[in-house]
Amino acid sequence: MQYPEPIAKLIDSYMKLPGIGSKTATRLAFYTIDMPEDDVTDFSKSLIAAKKDLHYCSVCGNITENDPCDICRDQSRDQNSVIVVEQPKDVMALDKMDDYHGLYHVLHGVLSPMEGKGPDDINIKTLIQRLQKQPIKEVIIATNATPEGEATAMYISRLIKPAGIKVTRLAHGLSVGSDIEYADEMTLLKAVEGRQEM
Amino acid sequence: MQYPEPIAKLIDSYMKLPGIGSKTATRLAFYTIDMPEDDVTDFSKSLIAAKKDLHYCSVCGNITENDPCDICRDQSRDQNSVIVVEQPKDVMALDKMDDYHGLYHVLHGVLSPMEGKGPDDINIKTLIQRLQKQPIKEVIIATNATPEGEATAMYISRLIKPAGIKVTRLAHGLSVGSDIEYADEMTLLKAVEGRQEM
Repeated sequence: MQYPEPIAKLIDSYMKLPGIGSKTATRLAFYTIDMPEDDVTDFSKSLIAAKKDLHYCSVCGNITENDPCDICRDQSRDQNSVIVVEQPKDVMALDKMDDYHGLYHVLHGVLSPMEGKGPDDINIKTLIQRLQKQPIKEVIIATNATPEGEATAMYISRLIKPAGIKVTRLAHGLSVGSDIEYADEMTLLKAVEGRQEM
Repeated sequence: MQYPEPIAKLIDSYMKLPGIGSKTATRLAFYTIDMPEDDVTDFSKSLIAAKKDLHYCSVCGNITENDPCDICRDQSRDQNSVIVVEQPKDVMALDKMDDYHGLYHVLHGVLSPMEGKGPDDINIKTLIQRLQKQPIKEVIIATNATPEGEATAMYISRLIKPAGIKVTRLAHGLSVGSDIEYADEMTLLKAVEGRQEM
């Protein structure tokens, strides 16, 4: 016996999401059937809305309803510094800090020769254009501390530095509140390398 | 900075699913935005369809598009035996066996005094009605091997037996292909209790 078609289709749809296999998809599908009708309608509408109403900002590449995005249009922000990140999620995470009021630039990925991703496949070109047009004095590179993230940081740094713009990289080291006992070797190495005089 | 409204709403919707917290919901929402438009449209439609087109069969309580369901209408099935299960998912699992061609009955839960679930809160009444109307000779109880599942099995058994209907319970024991080394105590106990002569 097969599942009735509507539930089979819903299971298929759930399985297209990352990290959701057939067992979880089945559980979610059966759960959906018992959900209040309003919640299911909202869910259905929000899927369409997220796909239709959201775009990438033509200036910084961040996800937004309006183009340019709220951050790029906000003239009260410090127009002299840009943090370069891999994904729109990183912008949200960084903007929780109250102490940074500059701009952002989203690469939408990192350089990865293994996956055939070169400089033209990520959002570097518009970064260069911004540096030519806007009064940016410092580019803070906040790609992740992976081999690809480091290589991308290095690539961008070499590209930008000749233009006389200051390029910095976020500090790597121990997380605040973490135990040295549980830190991995690479993090400890970075913490020692980046040590500062007290 | 907040997430743009469409993505915030989608994150909220994903968070209503079981086992999905805010981090996973955010990951799924950002993934959704990068999905092909057709997949998102299909997903949205299948949510509505699953909620609208699926009902519980008025005879057996299984999930179905038509009432009565395909199994209940199939006269080629053995009309003399019924397997009683907790959830519609269990019907799908059991019907993968090629050797059973009887009927099913879905309780939609188990007796649970802790959660205030009594006999009127699960689908027992219609089971009694079926036993009066249909020529059922054997009721096979396939509730899960949890304390609530066992109690429910016992309750149904006591209710039905006086009417002269045979009541059986699925065997508990070692899974086929499993190692004794890794079996838990309760399973081993059940396997010893249910031992059969060779």
